[in-house]
Amino acid sequence: MDISPRYLRAAYRSGALRPSDIAAHVLSRLGDADQSGVWISKAKPENVMAAARALDARVHEIDKLPLYGLIVSVKDCIDVAGEQTSSACPEFAYVAKVTSPVVADAIAAGAIYIGKTNMDQFATGLVGVRSPYGIARNPHHPDYIPGGSSSGAAVSVASGTSSFAFGTDTGGSGRVPASYCGVTGFKPAPGAFSQRGMVYACRSFDTISLYTREPGDGYDVYRALARRDPEDCFSPVDFAGWTEQMPPTRPFRIATPRPDQLRFFGNEETERLFGGGLRKLRRLDMSVASTDFSPFTSINDLMFFGPFLAERDVSVGAFLDANPDAGVRIVRDLVVGSRKFTAADAYRALYQVKEVQRSLRDFWQTHDALVVPTVGTVLTIDDVARDPLTANFNNGYYTNYANPLGLAAIAVPNAMTRAGVPHGVTFLAPAGRERLLADLACAFTGAEAQA
Amino acid sequence: MDISPRYLRAAYRSGALRPSDIAAHVLSRLGDADQSGVWISKAKPENVMAAARALDARVHEIDKLPLYGLIVSVKDCIDVAGEQTSSACPEFAYVAKVTSPVVADAIAAGAIYIGKTNMDQFATGLVGVRSPYGIARNPHHPDYIPGGSSSGAAVSVASGTSSFAFGTDTGGSGRVPASYCGVTGFKPAPGAFSQRGMVYACRSFDTISLYTREPGDGYDVYRALARRDPEDCFSPVDFAGWTEQMPPTRPFRIATPRPDQLRFFGNEETERLFGGGLRKLRRLDMSVASTDFSPFTSINDLMFFGPFLAERDVSVGAFLDANPDAGVRIVRDLVVGSRKFTAADAYRALYQVKEVQRSLRDFWQTHDALVVPTVGTVLTIDDVARDPLTANFNNGYYTNYANPLGLAAIAVPNAMTRAGVPHGVTFLAPAGRERLLADLACAFTGAEAQA
Repeated sequence: MDISPRYLRAAYRSGALRPSDIAAHVLSRLGDADQSGVWISKAKPENVMAAARALDARVHEIDKLPLYGLIVSVKDCIDVAGEQTSSACPEFAYVAKVTSPVVADAIAAGAIYIGKTNMDQFATGLVGVRSPYGIARNPHHPDYIPGGSSSGAAVSVASGTSSFAFGTDTGGSGRVPASYCGVTGFKPAPGAFSQRGMVYACRSFDTISLYTREPGDGYDVYRALARRDPEDCFSPVDFAGWTEQMPPTRPFRIATPRPDQLRFFGNEETERLFGGGLRKLRRLDMSVASTDFSPFTSINDLMFFGPFLAERDVSVGAFLDANPDAGVRIVRDLVVGSRKFTAADAYRALYQVKEVQRSLRDFWQTHDALVVPTVGTVLTIDDVARDPLTANFNNGYYTNYANPLGLAAIAVPNAMTRAGVPHGVTFLAPAGRERLLADLACAFTGAEAQA
Repeated sequence: MDISPRYLRAAYRSGALRPSDIAAHVLSRLGDADQSGVWISKAKPENVMAAARALDARVHEIDKLPLYGLIVSVKDCIDVAGEQTSSACPEFAYVAKVTSPVVADAIAAGAIYIGKTNMDQFATGLVGVRSPYGIARNPHHPDYIPGGSSSGAAVSVASGTSSFAFGTDTGGSGRVPASYCGVTGFKPAPGAFSQRGMVYACRSFDTISLYTREPGDGYDVYRALARRDPEDCFSPVDFAGWTEQMPPTRPFRIATPRPDQLRFFGNEETERLFGGGLRKLRRLDMSVASTDFSPFTSINDLMFFGPFLAERDVSVGAFLDANPDAGVRIVRDLVVGSRKFTAADAYRALYQVKEVQRSLRDFWQTHDALVVPTVGTVLTIDDVARDPLTANFNNGYYTNYANPLGLAAIAVPNAMTRAGVPHGVTFLAPAGRERLLADLACAFTGAEAQA
């Protein structure tokens, strides 16, 4: 059953459905096989139904409630008052006292909270297999990873148990699972969503993100929730200024990495699929030009091999020290291993990122958006088990740089591999071009692939 | 002879003086006793005279040249093409290929470069005694320090060999010497002046600064030179937006630290002088209210006892490693000692600063400016020799927090101690209120102290 925002909104408006119908339907689905590994905790059914019935009675207010009757799941590193937040580490779990402002806004706008989703522990990973709560099953092929870290979020949307899902994105966690699960990942530019009420990975550029099936829905939910939060010290004072740009007139000027800078890690099929995606764009009357991708990727190593890891240490290092048996080994090693980086390393990283931002200013004047494969190749669970660090790094080749550079991104499906695994593309642009990204993604996903 | 900007401009305009008259006068002064320790290098006299005579011939263009015929000195950590930059470390010295954009703009606007001034080595100090080039003599009392790190800059203005002087300010180097030398120190908010062409102390918030005798002159020079520099990655993209605020209507709402948070380090005289300064402000129809000063001072330790020191290591640490005999001991120890700080310490510092900025937003809505003593007490050279670290830290109590918080500041004279040493006050406010700060400082210095 389709529970996506546009479908539900029309059905609610026409009276064909009520929120309590959908809530009951989703509750009945949470034990299904396709939900394996998706949930870390679930809302009490009576609370879900009470919230849904309260909304049933408010249908006349639907125009004031942009998320009326939508089922929402929340990645388990984001707080919902009265629920456990574990960040996929049971020893770390606490009962949240206050709901994250973004989630609270969603509920106030009519969304129905259904449960907390699985993830790579402490949002440290792009694979979706680093969790003691199991692996959220890839909805298209059980041998393949779901992608991470927001694995459960993407699967809950793909498998029809969430109208939209809150994930987070630091190095790609809001985009990689979109590719693997064949859904949309809308990653705001850092600052558009409040960071309060979450377990930080890299607090200086973490963002809560959105999963939906359709890109238009992702953008609509984004618009309903993006706002300045004066209580969040990373919320930009000038936020109002960067949310209102209208898309330029077509043809949009799209950049894509020079062919020699594309990396598919030996996978000719995903290479071919991405080539098909570019042709699809060109048929949509977009100008697609090769560009030097190296400024973007030049900062990738900072994320999982450099001082950015130390932000994770600030967030959870004291917990790991106090709980020597807690934590997935690879996550613990990454976080604790960051202590070899000095303050000077952190400042060097800051200067490097600032210099890349500066060097890209002309690029963003002459290009409306960048399009990349969301991931270079598609990995099985066994692939990742064999070489977890390389797998993780490869999954981030097209994603790691986005948040440090302050970019917004939307990851959408492109095509399926012969094995039946989705492979997606991501459009990226500076803050203020979210509408452009959504328009691009809608046009792209609505276009037919050429045989 | 008065060579201050307003005096010279009037004299040039009337034809009473020509730039070559002033250049010759200043050149004749550079060997005087009051210039002891002020200069690290001097411009070739023939170059100075050639520049001055070229300006003589352009007097009809004076309206297009806001700094026409003004003599300018440059702190020796700022590049002037063809001149040595030593940052007060002879082994570090190099001949600059390109002039700092701020200095180049000044010269293009009519200023005449006269020489490079002494400073605390690598701009690491607030005392003015950490230099192998001697101690710039305090123009009011030779037993007292000139303040640092921009010691020569302040003395060159106070002693009449510069119409204005370029200093720099990281933790107070553009303000502390203004107090000790009885001149004005105008410290732009970080970003208003390009950072290119200087030896960084803490690159993420260093700023070039200005010394003049009169605050109005400091502001005029600032206005002539402040601009966005697209080649400087720390130059704010939105600079145009924050330079145009007009002062509010009077009475200005001035905040000052709660009496129990003022620190004079046992000096009852400076305490009394500052009290007199507050009374002067109140007589000027300003509202002066005590405020909680602790948010500001809460980040002071980061500057000389915390991870901010590691930015200095990024700047000059490799040089110090390669030259084990170079460097003033205390400066070397501070810079190299920063290696104990981890990347996590740097990120914690970032979060702390961001949170203080956030917590002060309401404060800046309800207050136009903050007024503090520029320094708590006045120190002799012997005082500093006895306990250099404490002396340095005490000198920064009212100054260290300003750049990390993005504030602009103007330090102006208030009164003289019985020993004949000036003691000043500083007005601070967020970027965009520079005009307000200048108006305040002009009113303050123009007001008579009450007997």
